Amino acid sequence: MKKIEIYDTTLRDGAQGEGVSFSLQDKLAITQRLDEIGVDFIEGGYPLSNEKDAEYFRRVQELDLKQIKVCAFGMTRRKGMEAKDDPGMQALLNSGAPVVTIVGKTHDFHVTDVLRVSLEENLSMIADSIGLMVAEGREAIYDAEHFFDGWKANPDYAAQTIQAAAKAGARMVVLCDTNGGSLPEEVAELVKAAIDALSEYNVPVGIHTHNDGELAVANALAAVDAGALQIQGTINGFGERCGNADLISCVANLALKKKGYEVLGGDGLDHLTELSRFVYDTANVNRRNNQAFVGQSAFAHKGGMHVHAVNRAASSYEHISPELVGNERRVLVSELSGRSNIMALTTKMNIEQDREVMDKILARVVELENKGFQFEAAEASFELLVRKILGTFTSHFETLKYHVEIEDFVDRQDMELTTEATIKLNVNGSQKHEVGEGDGPIDALSAALRKALDVAFPNLKRMKLVDYKVRVVNSEAGTAARTRVQIECSDEHDVWGTIGVSENIIQASWNALVDAVEYKLHKDESAAKASTNKEVAATN
Amino acid sequence: MKKIEIYDTTLRDGAQGEGVSFSLQDKLAITQRLDEIGVDFIEGGYPLSNEKDAEYFRRVQELDLKQIKVCAFGMTRRKGMEAKDDPGMQALLNSGAPVVTIVGKTHDFHVTDVLRVSLEENLSMIADSIGLMVAEGREAIYDAEHFFDGWKANPDYAAQTIQAAAKAGARMVVLCDTNGGSLPEEVAELVKAAIDALSEYNVPVGIHTHNDGELAVANALAAVDAGALQIQGTINGFGERCGNADLISCVANLALKKKGYEVLGGDGLDHLTELSRFVYDTANVNRRNNQAFVGQSAFAHKGGMHVHAVNRAASSYEHISPELVGNERRVLVSELSGRSNIMALTTKMNIEQDREVMDKILARVVELENKGFQFEAAEASFELLVRKILGTFTSHFETLKYHVEIEDFVDRQDMELTTEATIKLNVNGSQKHEVGEGDGPIDALSAALRKALDVAFPNLKRMKLVDYKVRVVNSEAGTAARTRVQIECSDEHDVWGTIGVSENIIQASWNALVDAVEYKLHKDESAAKASTNKEVAATN
Repeated sequence: MKKIEIYDTTLRDGAQGEGVSFSLQDKLAITQRLDEIGVDFIEGGYPLSNEKDAEYFRRVQELDLKQIKVCAFGMTRRKGMEAKDDPGMQALLNSGAPVVTIVGKTHDFHVTDVLRVSLEENLSMIADSIGLMVAEGREAIYDAEHFFDGWKANPDYAAQTIQAAAKAGARMVVLCDTNGGSLPEEVAELVKAAIDALSEYNVPVGIHTHNDGELAVANALAAVDAGALQIQGTINGFGERCGNADLISCVANLALKKKGYEVLGGDGLDHLTELSRFVYDTANVNRRNNQAFVGQSAFAHKGGMHVHAVNRAASSYEHISPELVGNERRVLVSELSGRSNIMALTTKMNIEQDREVMDKILARVVELENKGFQFEAAEASFELLVRKILGTFTSHFETLKYHVEIEDFVDRQDMELTTEATIKLNVNGSQKHEVGEGDGPIDALSAALRKALDVAFPNLKRMKLVDYKVRVVNSEAGTAARTRVQIECSDEHDVWGTIGVSENIIQASWNALVDAVEYKLHKDESAAKASTNKEVAATN
Repeated sequence: MKKIEIYDTTLRDGAQGEGVSFSLQDKLAITQRLDEIGVDFIEGGYPLSNEKDAEYFRRVQELDLKQIKVCAFGMTRRKGMEAKDDPGMQALLNSGAPVVTIVGKTHDFHVTDVLRVSLEENLSMIADSIGLMVAEGREAIYDAEHFFDGWKANPDYAAQTIQAAAKAGARMVVLCDTNGGSLPEEVAELVKAAIDALSEYNVPVGIHTHNDGELAVANALAAVDAGALQIQGTINGFGERCGNADLISCVANLALKKKGYEVLGGDGLDHLTELSRFVYDTANVNRRNNQAFVGQSAFAHKGGMHVHAVNRAASSYEHISPELVGNERRVLVSELSGRSNIMALTTKMNIEQDREVMDKILARVVELENKGFQFEAAEASFELLVRKILGTFTSHFETLKYHVEIEDFVDRQDMELTTEATIKLNVNGSQKHEVGEGDGPIDALSAALRKALDVAFPNLKRMKLVDYKVRVVNSEAGTAARTRVQIECSDEHDVWGTIGVSENIIQASWNALVDAVEYKLHKDESAAKASTNKEVAATN
């Protein structure tokens, strides 16, 4: 089995996609997930370009990562200066990332007409930049920009650029189809040519493709068959223009269709569907239902003939068993999400998988999904739902009423926009009527809620609202459609997500907020109980 | 040049896609468009399956089509009856379609275990069905279902099935990767094997692929290189599960990338983008921005480095010139952008690129981006910003005050959650004080705003809110952080995006809403001015 390295650039090249942007928290959360799933490399960002990327490299060092290698991305040094004096090179070194990926020019035309340096100077820029990183103890990956177009235009010069990188100590040369227009047969041929050109340096090649011809995945696979040992791409194919190669399709094809390749480790493959959805939800981008392998429709059967045949023999109309990638079969027209997801979640919660209970949970999830709920990024709400069905949920308070007022006098400079929320709750049998102010309705509601609960539940003081996302569920109907609110909270131990759906954004937010508080209180009680049990056990 | 036939099955296989359905009018309109663009065959439907399809075949005969051939689709005759007595066969003949496409079984397992007939009987079913159509003067195309899986399981039997069709007079045998799981190298190999098996009958082969491995286009191209003379697919890749091969990508790759193939006729290629959008809008399916060749982002440039290079040489970051497929280049303003992005946008707006003005715009964009604005999906807000800096913006109304109240009595079943907004505006010198109700604060504000402006600006009635997205910008600070609201509006001509950022979601939404209305009014005035100028010019 030949190991193919998976190099993820969702956080850098993926964020070049229209409508895609990640907060620092998002970037750290995605890093953690990709590590869990067995991805080999993650390109965290371009430390020179902005403060958020630089901060990422500081914060990522605090994560407890198993095996993923964090890479910082940058360009070759500027013309006419020493590599060590270049601010980009310094930013790469200061990032503290153990791997540095440097992109340089391959195509003679780009060197002379876009970069505007001599062909010789470009070779020095490549060699110096890689050389500096290696001298400073970093692993260096060299991304050969426009490799395929460059080789077609001037193969001798293209070869010299990648040889310069190899000679300077690059651990790998990655051949980039930057414009995304190459055909698989061209990719195969030029990957072989590059391997030949690098044979004396013993440096392997990788592949980085884009989807402008709808061939990114085919091109990546063709490159691997021709000898490439690394695939660079993004989750869900996010990326500039038509996107990068979707690592999910690449991984699934290599693991399930091709023979003789080893990708990811452990049971990473089983989590591809979950990973795909997590990244969509984190980026607040709509999922693509017909996405290969992991889309909600990928194993959905609509045609009467097919449904009939699927019932006779599951493999009749499925190229793989959906469970292999954590997806599931859907028959007839229904918004069904997953029994397997539900099984996976309840397993995680240590809940006994009684058939009848499962059916009840499934029915309730289907009902809620039809209303626009999505539980992939709201596991805390899902857990509360399961506890309600099991009868093991006890609420800590009851909402009687809430009222929000927002007023903005635009013409008076001395008057600020004010938001006031009043809530009435039933807490442990007594009524609490509180008013809170805030920077917006959710903030004001949250302030009032804390006032009402802080005495009874003092540990709520350590709960923080980390993120807040809103999406219209049926966008065709404009503002009057249902609104889905996802919030993320944290305390000193955990991060948890909850969800609310309503035609009214305030109601949806309130429901998500209530779930977040209930989950926190439940969680703390369970932890207290567990630690008491431990103490009792220790005493005995 | 070798002619490759394009066979469209958007109306039949495409309509199997989740969320896709066409009315009779839609089907006729798509037929007309595909004829105009030079597609060779259109599969109109399955006349036995429903009355709408049968009616389509009657009505399509009234269209004045240039060259496209209309095909009716059906299965081989049922077991144990004569072809002429089979209701499916009769429906195909009654359709009056000049071409009939018959699908039959290739895979021995499907014959015996799904269809439940003997291997011999299946061969007779194929031969009888094709034979009847040919005898009745129809061109017959044979679709070999599960060809690739069938051949892998039992090549001898698979060969016999396609030979039965060829012997009976089929004009072409189309090899179907029904489950969509084949790899390009397998497709190439088995297409050659099929051509060999059919060599004595002089019947060519075609290819029909699905996208379950994200390889539908690559597989179709591999088949053509191996000798297939027809591609079956759908516009935009609509279709069951992960969809069929997208004919747009197939055609564009064959015409612009591959050598030696002739596809479509005339200037069909120039209209691919228009065709793609027409089919999305007709099916009422959201367009996919990152679609290869024809997506709105397919030639969009975001990264500062790339934009800089694109301005120096357009081909630097584009695999083809966007005009070749009727698409256009777009430059996005984003946190990664700089002066070059802004230059490109203002060029599009026909604004003179005065150095000082550019500096002012850039400074303002940077200031706003630091506050959490993103203009890449909010070009309308960007245009207003530029006009404000240039001093060419005149507001149509002034906001004096807005007030929103939301009240929810959770304990009273008879009481609904109510949202009420009151606004005070200055419109053309007179004060408007209006109240609106809605399903949420934005909806209520929007209702009040329309009440206040509808008399002065009646064309606002045609403006629709299409989408609404909210994101917390600095998620670290929780609900008190800034909120970014992006909205998308449309009228009968255009779609435009605006943005608002504030600590208060209601204020951010209000600002985005005001921008959307101001943009609409500005746009309509400019259009009216331009058409007056044209009239004046024509009169002179």
